[in-house]
Amino acid sequence: MKRLNPMLQRLEQFYEEMVQLRRELHMYPELSFQEVETPRKIAAIHRELGLDVRTEVGGRGVVATLRGGKPGPTVALRADFDALPIQDEKEVDYKSRVPGVMHACGHDLHTATLIGVARVLVERKEELAGNVVFIHQFAEEVSPGGAKPMIEDGCLDDVDVIYGYHVWAGIPYGEVRVTEGYMMAAVDDFIIHIEGKGGHGATPHVTVDPIVVGSQLVLNLQQIVSRRVDPLKPAVLTVGSFVSGNAFNVIPGTAQLRGTIRSFDDDVRALMEQALKEVTEATCRAAGAKARIEFLRGYPAVNNHAEPTKWIEEAAKPIVGADQVKPLTPIMGGEDFAYYLQKVPGTFFFVGGENSELNAVYPHHHPKFDVDERAMIIGGKVFLAAVARHLLK
Amino acid sequence: MKRLNPMLQRLEQFYEEMVQLRRELHMYPELSFQEVETPRKIAAIHRELGLDVRTEVGGRGVVATLRGGKPGPTVALRADFDALPIQDEKEVDYKSRVPGVMHACGHDLHTATLIGVARVLVERKEELAGNVVFIHQFAEEVSPGGAKPMIEDGCLDDVDVIYGYHVWAGIPYGEVRVTEGYMMAAVDDFIIHIEGKGGHGATPHVTVDPIVVGSQLVLNLQQIVSRRVDPLKPAVLTVGSFVSGNAFNVIPGTAQLRGTIRSFDDDVRALMEQALKEVTEATCRAAGAKARIEFLRGYPAVNNHAEPTKWIEEAAKPIVGADQVKPLTPIMGGEDFAYYLQKVPGTFFFVGGENSELNAVYPHHHPKFDVDERAMIIGGKVFLAAVARHLLK
Amino acid sequence: MKRLNPMLQRLEQFYEEMVQLRRELHMYPELSFQEVETPRKIAAIHRELGLDVRTEVGGRGVVATLRGGKPGPTVALRADFDALPIQDEKEVDYKSRVPGVMHACGHDLHTATLIGVARVLVERKEELAGNVVFIHQFAEEVSPGGAKPMIEDGCLDDVDVIYGYHVWAGIPYGEVRVTEGYMMAAVDDFIIHIEGKGGHGATPHVTVDPIVVGSQLVLNLQQIVSRRVDPLKPAVLTVGSFVSGNAFNVIPGTAQLRGTIRSFDDDVRALMEQALKEVTEATCRAAGAKARIEFLRGYPAVNNHAEPTKWIEEAAKPIVGADQVKPLTPIMGGEDFAYYLQKVPGTFFFVGGENSELNAVYPHHHPKFDVDERAMIIGGKVFLAAVARHLLK
Amino acid sequence: MKRLNPMLQRLEQFYEEMVQLRRELHMYPELSFQEVETPRKIAAIHRELGLDVRTEVGGRGVVATLRGGKPGPTVALRADFDALPIQDEKEVDYKSRVPGVMHACGHDLHTATLIGVARVLVERKEELAGNVVFIHQFAEEVSPGGAKPMIEDGCLDDVDVIYGYHVWAGIPYGEVRVTEGYMMAAVDDFIIHIEGKGGHGATPHVTVDPIVVGSQLVLNLQQIVSRRVDPLKPAVLTVGSFVSGNAFNVIPGTAQLRGTIRSFDDDVRALMEQALKEVTEATCRAAGAKARIEFLRGYPAVNNHAEPTKWIEEAAKPIVGADQVKPLTPIMGGEDFAYYLQKVPGTFFFVGGENSELNAVYPHHHPKFDVDERAMIIGGKVFLAAVARHLLK
Repeated sequence: MKRLNPMLQRLEQFYEEMVQLRRELHMYPELSFQEVETPRKIAAIHRELGLDVRTEVGGRGVVATLRGGKPGPTVALRADFDALPIQDEKEVDYKSRVPGVMHACGHDLHTATLIGVARVLVERKEELAGNVVFIHQFAEEVSPGGAKPMIEDGCLDDVDVIYGYHVWAGIPYGEVRVTEGYMMAAVDDFIIHIEGKGGHGATPHVTVDPIVVGSQLVLNLQQIVSRRVDPLKPAVLTVGSFVSGNAFNVIPGTAQLRGTIRSFDDDVRALMEQALKEVTEATCRAAGAKARIEFLRGYPAVNNHAEPTKWIEEAAKPIVGADQVKPLTPIMGGEDFAYYLQKVPGTFFFVGGENSELNAVYPHHHPKFDVDERAMIIGGKVFLAAVARHLLK
Repeated sequence: MKRLNPMLQRLEQFYEEMVQLRRELHMYPELSFQEVETPRKIAAIHRELGLDVRTEVGGRGVVATLRGGKPGPTVALRADFDALPIQDEKEVDYKSRVPGVMHACGHDLHTATLIGVARVLVERKEELAGNVVFIHQFAEEVSPGGAKPMIEDGCLDDVDVIYGYHVWAGIPYGEVRVTEGYMMAAVDDFIIHIEGKGGHGATPHVTVDPIVVGSQLVLNLQQIVSRRVDPLKPAVLTVGSFVSGNAFNVIPGTAQLRGTIRSFDDDVRALMEQALKEVTEATCRAAGAKARIEFLRGYPAVNNHAEPTKWIEEAAKPIVGADQVKPLTPIMGGEDFAYYLQKVPGTFFFVGGENSELNAVYPHHHPKFDVDERAMIIGGKVFLAAVARHLLK
Repeated sequence: MKRLNPMLQRLEQFYEEMVQLRRELHMYPELSFQEVETPRKIAAIHRELGLDVRTEVGGRGVVATLRGGKPGPTVALRADFDALPIQDEKEVDYKSRVPGVMHACGHDLHTATLIGVARVLVERKEELAGNVVFIHQFAEEVSPGGAKPMIEDGCLDDVDVIYGYHVWAGIPYGEVRVTEGYMMAAVDDFIIHIEGKGGHGATPHVTVDPIVVGSQLVLNLQQIVSRRVDPLKPAVLTVGSFVSGNAFNVIPGTAQLRGTIRSFDDDVRALMEQALKEVTEATCRAAGAKARIEFLRGYPAVNNHAEPTKWIEEAAKPIVGADQVKPLTPIMGGEDFAYYLQKVPGTFFFVGGENSELNAVYPHHHPKFDVDERAMIIGGKVFLAAVARHLLK
Repeated sequence: MKRLNPMLQRLEQFYEEMVQLRRELHMYPELSFQEVETPRKIAAIHRELGLDVRTEVGGRGVVATLRGGKPGPTVALRADFDALPIQDEKEVDYKSRVPGVMHACGHDLHTATLIGVARVLVERKEELAGNVVFIHQFAEEVSPGGAKPMIEDGCLDDVDVIYGYHVWAGIPYGEVRVTEGYMMAAVDDFIIHIEGKGGHGATPHVTVDPIVVGSQLVLNLQQIVSRRVDPLKPAVLTVGSFVSGNAFNVIPGTAQLRGTIRSFDDDVRALMEQALKEVTEATCRAAGAKARIEFLRGYPAVNNHAEPTKWIEEAAKPIVGADQVKPLTPIMGGEDFAYYLQKVPGTFFFVGGENSELNAVYPHHHPKFDVDERAMIIGGKVFLAAVARHLLK
């Protein structure tokens, strides 16, 4: 602690710079899998700091390694840096300059936090008994995401433990939320193409009505959750889009359903994929229609390891106060941080960003989304405390 | 018959002219409620023939009256003249010159037939004991149609009996089809706006899912025909369009269904409208959603009167041969000729237009629709025979 | 007519005797396929009248043949004689003496009518140019019925035309109803056994819930009528019984549905049987359940021949007055008279039996069912007139 | 521990007696709310041991109080004693002598355990710093159960903490299962009476078909779990019985559904009751039917308190070995022990009873249900250890 506190204070001195970087990123957001300037900028800063930098890791990722003065374990910290296809509607001077693209999920803050942490740690390089790997990930928002290819490209090699955080709009600024075990859901999407047989609306008997078939299917799919999944295990199946036909009196030939499946346990996830396929095929066959399913297997569930979670909980308490470190009810949204946790121990935590005085009250992915930027200080300090636990002996 | 036969032969002499007029109309089709040149041309011809002509009847209709030399009843003949929003894909030199607009239902033939008949009758004017009213109707294809306003504007005043015909692509050239009683269906359309409550696909419990509600509704609506309508009375309810949402993981706020109802009997029609509303409202309410229904009351059923139908049957037999005059199985499509039959006795009949040698094999409203133009001769002759029965004593 | 009128008057003289016979039968009704005394009594009377009598025709049927004095065609008249498992609740002195069994459909009147007609014709035997066959049929109420085996056992051999009538509670006494073509529906029944997998109500995920599957099936079956059958062709599919489980908290292993299908056209009938099987199997398979279907193919539709129908219409007019002979809206109930009409020309007609003064106002199969017995006079006279048309030259 | 161990050993000496009592109860089981001899026997034993005994507590309950030699807190131990309407099919000499009634849930063991524990504690009376209340509860199997009236009749007065256990057939003998928080579900049952309008199966249009309405309802009810309940909160709604009609061709007038709802959280429980009522009423109204719902509010969820659960966990470890004390996945069945926990701190735990060598492999409520009787030793020792923690200072 003696050695940690100066590091925490030092981070505060970098706050203005972190804010400036965050706002630069905010003004020039880049969509998933289309990131060019963002990784270039990140790599440049890390190089300037004297770290080993690998670019184009797994595609567009950047991995910077800080080697400590003494031997020891390797701690990875991860931040994602992609933005969303949303038009920024905030009234602030750092509003997005790119039409239709916006950092509406806080990845800009994650990135700036990691840079701030790097600045502090570089200064303490010699004291560190081990290494720190800064994983700057592209494409978190869009499956198949950047985590998997970056891991395949070696970003976790020699890593002993990994931490990541998400600033969260729905949690008051000042809070840190941790949870052991399942924290965020496995997310799989699907597209179902129903092929019936079109015809005139007045002669249904010579058609196979895909709207009726699709409607049956929507209802039959409800029973996967209500009848097939263990009631003690969370699961969601939502059809988010039903599109068929465009006339009053024409029975269309096809219908298209799109939707998402959320689960935690691998067996529930597998069961739901299987059930989706079975129910779809049998429902369509029952009606004389054909079904084609595109199953878009997404991220697995974020399953936080017990010990790293405990460490983060302990690290956070002195920083925000013990009563501000709370458990998190698992959420049904997904995160490809899950892939890192399948490979090495680690945990993912949330840092509150809501502040009504700053009008930071809109949910993630909202055109007016914003958060209290001081969340970067909290996230960064918790990172520093975690690094200290592992590397300051 | 002695006096009829020369009239029938005279019509044949006008055939080339009828074809020419039909093709002119075919090349310059005009959409329902947007007819300008078509009624102008029709009115000009009738004026030239010396008939009393009223234009803008009920909107864009033309009514020409031929007063016979002696007193007697008034016979009305009706032809519609609007075209459809379909791109002509035929390979003929009279192909539509108007992009995206086409006479794909034969109204051009109906119009040219009526003109041909007028030419014949004008020459026999003095012999006629009574009058003939030529009703050229706009906007048959699109409800609320032109028949109703034309009637309200007096087109049936003093009319004692009315006849109309439809050239029909699915019936071989040479045939005439007549049927007493219900011949074409009442057609009502509807739009159902379902208002649920949108949200994230992973948190259905804070939403009201309009796709699930809409699916239930589609299935519940099936029971109107299967459970609520007398099985001896024909009825169809088709949902032709289901549109809701456009993302995998967002539960949309609304869904929109569009569809059509077909029936014959007034009581079935009323029951289905009532049931549609009840089932929609209750299904939505059951799910916590709201429903708004736009009910687009269309044409009533074409209900042919017994005696006029018999007269047409008898009139047609010598013209096409007794074995070529057949009964018509009622069809579920609609026609606003129905309104005329609610006011005065009359009948509507079909004249075959199918001829594979001419490639006239496509259904109505098809981009390659065409018919054997000689159907105009048959239709016109049956009209003349009907007029003769009433006005040649 | 000259010779018919005395026959009609003679029938009236037998009325008291017909009533007495009808009431005897009414007091001692016998269930379908269990008739013993009824055919014995019928055979005895015909023997007494001197007719050729065959008993046990096709099982329990009686066929009596009256051979006319001159050669000529053979006319068959048919009456059924079985009763129903219903407890008679009428307050009359001829109330059923057999507990739980009742002539609640009028077959007793049909039988007595035929005997009365036989009495009249026997007296005119020598005048008849042809023969009359009296077909007394057992087991009309319960499929597979008596008509089929009686035909297979020769009851229609040499028969040229057949007539039958049904006294009808819902038609006022004094009326005769005739209809050409389809008059009564084809009736098929079914039992569907759904085999799911039972278990505790709190652990649905290890069961296959047959109540949910059965409910889906009931709704899916609705679409056979609403989507698969030509809307111009009448069809009904009703599930009359759904039985599954007997506890709050146990998911049962099986469910049983029973129901009936009504149709007229053979193709609709075949389509519905096929669709029932397809929809049932696919719906169950979609849910992981198994289905076993018992399809109880019943009587075909009664399809009256054109000419015999016209003859009955003409025969009836002088008897009840032209305005009392009316067309009959086809009814969805079944009759195995249909089988006779598949073999020889003929027609089936209804004779009104409703009379509120006699409290004859209850529908068929009601515990208080009764009809105006004078309907026997009308039915018998129409039979006599029909016989006269064929055999009195 | 020094003083606890002799008590544990002493309990073993009472094992034979406990077995004998258990088997006596097993041979003469009594149904819920009909218990007479069982409470009489229990009261007699406690009186013999010198305890204060209250009978007819809340109806048929027995409460025996052992007052320790010194002042201190009051610990309650609870055992239920009612049996089930099941025919015993085991082949053992202690098989039930009462036709159709059986201790198929282990309540006989619970009772004998409590008596054994009382025998031990009576001998240590003077050492105890506080009191022990033995709650022998009637009618656990049938809602509204005996716990509630016994509490209202004062059985928890002055009680500071309560413990109860259930021998469990599905858990191997030798294990103890504990869980903090929700352990067993809230159980509510319902009966839905649907009133449609009956009629002939061939004329659905003049009926309101309760089988179709009931089927819709079964499916609509599925959506309560799939769409209305927070996916993170367990919930089950099962329709266990659907009964309507008994003929092929009659649309019945009514249908009856029976089912059960399981939940943990009070808000989910309230939401499901509300949703059941709303969905039922709206679904029926949508179809023109009426619904009457009997809602049989059952036991709330068993929600174990944190500290007592920890104490039992610690108490059990030396008794069965630390690796044999395991967490319990919450189960969806109910227990009215829940009511006690709403009033005072406490916990409910499971003791394994499965032993394939003894053929003790059938689930609870099975006609061949049995358990390893030595589970009584384990349950009793854990009780003694818990009492010792509170009362031996």
